[in-house]
Amino acid sequence: MKDDRFLKKAHDLMPVLYETTVRPVSGMPGKDRLMRDGDGFTLDFGSHFVGYLTLALDVKRPGDDAADAPLAVEFRFFENLRENTDEPYTGGMSRSWFQNASVLIDDPYAPIELHRRYSFRYVKIRFPSNTSYSVVYKDCFVRAVTSADMTKVAPLPENTDPLLVKLDKVSLLTLRDCMQQVFEDGPKRDRRLWLGDLYLQAKTNYYTFKNNGLVLRCLYLFAGLPHDDGLLSSAVFHEPVLKNQSWVLHDYALLFVGALADYYRATGDIGVLKELWPAAYRQTELAYKSFEQCGRSANVDLFFIDWCPSLDKSCAALGMILAMFKEALYLADTVGTAWEQASLEERIKDVSSALLDMYSPDIRLFRGASGQLSAHSQMWAALAGVLGPREQKEMMKAALKAELVSPVAPYAMHYFVEALILSGLKDEAFALLKSYWGGMLDRGYDCFPEVFVPGDPEASPYGSPAMNSFCHAWSCTPSYFIRKYMLRTGPG
Amino acid sequence: MKDDRFLKKAHDLMPVLYETTVRPVSGMPGKDRLMRDGDGFTLDFGSHFVGYLTLALDVKRPGDDAADAPLAVEFRFFENLRENTDEPYTGGMSRSWFQNASVLIDDPYAPIELHRRYSFRYVKIRFPSNTSYSVVYKDCFVRAVTSADMTKVAPLPENTDPLLVKLDKVSLLTLRDCMQQVFEDGPKRDRRLWLGDLYLQAKTNYYTFKNNGLVLRCLYLFAGLPHDDGLLSSAVFHEPVLKNQSWVLHDYALLFVGALADYYRATGDIGVLKELWPAAYRQTELAYKSFEQCGRSANVDLFFIDWCPSLDKSCAALGMILAMFKEALYLADTVGTAWEQASLEERIKDVSSALLDMYSPDIRLFRGASGQLSAHSQMWAALAGVLGPREQKEMMKAALKAELVSPVAPYAMHYFVEALILSGLKDEAFALLKSYWGGMLDRGYDCFPEVFVPGDPEASPYGSPAMNSFCHAWSCTPSYFIRKYMLRTGPG
Repeated sequence: MKDDRFLKKAHDLMPVLYETTVRPVSGMPGKDRLMRDGDGFTLDFGSHFVGYLTLALDVKRPGDDAADAPLAVEFRFFENLRENTDEPYTGGMSRSWFQNASVLIDDPYAPIELHRRYSFRYVKIRFPSNTSYSVVYKDCFVRAVTSADMTKVAPLPENTDPLLVKLDKVSLLTLRDCMQQVFEDGPKRDRRLWLGDLYLQAKTNYYTFKNNGLVLRCLYLFAGLPHDDGLLSSAVFHEPVLKNQSWVLHDYALLFVGALADYYRATGDIGVLKELWPAAYRQTELAYKSFEQCGRSANVDLFFIDWCPSLDKSCAALGMILAMFKEALYLADTVGTAWEQASLEERIKDVSSALLDMYSPDIRLFRGASGQLSAHSQMWAALAGVLGPREQKEMMKAALKAELVSPVAPYAMHYFVEALILSGLKDEAFALLKSYWGGMLDRGYDCFPEVFVPGDPEASPYGSPAMNSFCHAWSCTPSYFIRKYMLRTGPG
Repeated sequence: MKDDRFLKKAHDLMPVLYETTVRPVSGMPGKDRLMRDGDGFTLDFGSHFVGYLTLALDVKRPGDDAADAPLAVEFRFFENLRENTDEPYTGGMSRSWFQNASVLIDDPYAPIELHRRYSFRYVKIRFPSNTSYSVVYKDCFVRAVTSADMTKVAPLPENTDPLLVKLDKVSLLTLRDCMQQVFEDGPKRDRRLWLGDLYLQAKTNYYTFKNNGLVLRCLYLFAGLPHDDGLLSSAVFHEPVLKNQSWVLHDYALLFVGALADYYRATGDIGVLKELWPAAYRQTELAYKSFEQCGRSANVDLFFIDWCPSLDKSCAALGMILAMFKEALYLADTVGTAWEQASLEERIKDVSSALLDMYSPDIRLFRGASGQLSAHSQMWAALAGVLGPREQKEMMKAALKAELVSPVAPYAMHYFVEALILSGLKDEAFALLKSYWGGMLDRGYDCFPEVFVPGDPEASPYGSPAMNSFCHAWSCTPSYFIRKYMLRTGPG
């Protein structure tokens, strides 16, 4: 199913890409180093960039002869040197995501322009062939691209905690490199517009780059490509073909409600709200239908929640449904019909009641249906505001002390931090933010990665850390927390 | 040293490249064959072509989802299936000549156009990655290019010996694919303008494609890029940079004289002859100077003669010098000064005398300085016409019967066949032509290769038959012999 009106609007909102030329800061071989037959070098661009690489070489051959054979050049692009491994990859994700290029060049005197876009800080370059001539390094640069405008970001006050300054800087860089023609999840892989990622990217964007047109473009893309029943897709391919993804995730679909509410709060654009409200409302209807069909519980198979295979999602999913139903009610009060408002109120009661059944007042914690205690259950219950404020604060305090299944993705950790803040535990929230995201800095990350487990730093949902995305949109929210809750700057 | 007037004229003679779209005749997978994870196929284009490949695929993914990862495609181009080997290559020639391409495609729905020019009949295509989608074959074609115009070639008479018809056809195809912006030695490798190859290509061209402008362009390129002493280069790089090659070969330099004489005979263009005569004459001066410096013998280190490491080149080199001095005298009689004519007459006497010293009248054969008996010594002595006609015929008859070091390259075999014809042994010449070049057809060659030794069919000067050039200009002369000596058609 396609809604061409929305897709046309999305197309018209195609962003300008800002281009910057960046040269490596180290690793360049000396102008007198002759290379061939397996020689090579690794360039470090000093920071993470997304863009197009050009390499220029000179040719040296004894007797001043011309190059007499093609030149073979191998490139390997790394966001993080953890990718610099020769271990065979056996994971399920396609090997074609590894950022390698192997080219044969007929004219080694001409600059070599690679046509694909790469996401990297390092590039390892090798000349594998036994040519009768050698090459020497002349120049290399990347034409870096982003739809984020760095000049829009307000500087932090001079007295800001240096660790927060650093976390903010890396968050901005992470978000900048994920902002392309859409909000990509990761510019290395899979370069796709996911609703879960968009939700957090948009939140951070309102406090930083303020590219609201890009958020709107992405909302239109989702609204323009629903499944046949009106459920919004978990992700949209905007290239190579504009298409939705068949993978159904109710939590992602529901985040459209939250993303629309955030957009409205940031822009006050009532026209857009009226236009997209029916799509948002439809997500609540479908989630409620599924809730009813599953005996007043969540169909956990349709919820992502986190990259955490052992997680019992039953409670977190209900909290998530409830939180988004409440966002829907906020929107319904502005543009919905009386009947929609009434339905939502009714459904909020039903889901609240099911969620409260999972609360164990004795330990002041929520349990999954299996009895499992997880951070995920507590944070979504808190974000849903199902308990009274005082009880919620006690619950989150208990959560901080208890032995819980922990967040694996920074995406999940975001909600835990936000839950702490909304429960009146701002100091604890910022302490956690500093220790968790700061732990990534300690491990030398230039950008915030897709997955970070402090006790298992090489964790990978893909069978190899080399396949991880080391610049991942959903990990960029420290800037949002710092600017929203420390500086108390407004969005927009 | 550069002569920009000649280089400008060469540039102005840049040929038109004729383009033809060709599709494979077999090997195409069915439209329902799903491929990924190492699957692939080998296309056969039915005949040898030089050009640019495009591959078009369709994407199939369960659930009608879009392709969700880049597509890795590996191409291996083969002129001959002997190249389809996984044996590691350890020869000295650069591995970068192997016609491989390994690409990662962001848009697997779009036709994949490879930008390099390939020389091939077969292309092996493989999809190495474990993508979650499969591809199916849609289309593949090559945009074949050549500066040869097939419509210029006169058909052979209907009663022509079928083997000669076949040899002519394969010769034409071989020459066609070597005719690009210059007469290349081989379109797979090394795509260079060599004087020895040009000499034979031009001879064949006058009787077939009649692209005399291309011959002239190549003569200008050599005349425009001499070494500092005026010696012409053995080869010219016309790309990636226009430059001569430092490798000095006196026999190749002398063939400029023969090539100019042939051009004049074919075109009667006295203007070009006057313009290029000084460069041609200079080659005879330098060869004579070297002959004197070496005690009235040839400096064999500066002669190629054949790809035959055990060959004693001393006699063949003298015959070659003499043959080209006689061509020079023919030109001097038309455009040279009286002094040049007289010098050449004198020098012809000197070289003849040195060459005759190597003749053994008892066995009616020429011997190299080491005493070695080779086909090469006899053929160049015959082409030089150093004996009387009757004695020369007896010498070549003896050569046919004797145990001699044999030609390795068809380039050398050409001179042996021509020597037989010029010695009144046309039947023997054509019998040899049929058995030698016919032997290549028997071994399934589509084009005539760079090297062919009947008793050692996998011979390679490069340490591996996979590195051989299977479509090589200097092997195209059967068409010349058939059309000049059987049909007695004139050139031009």
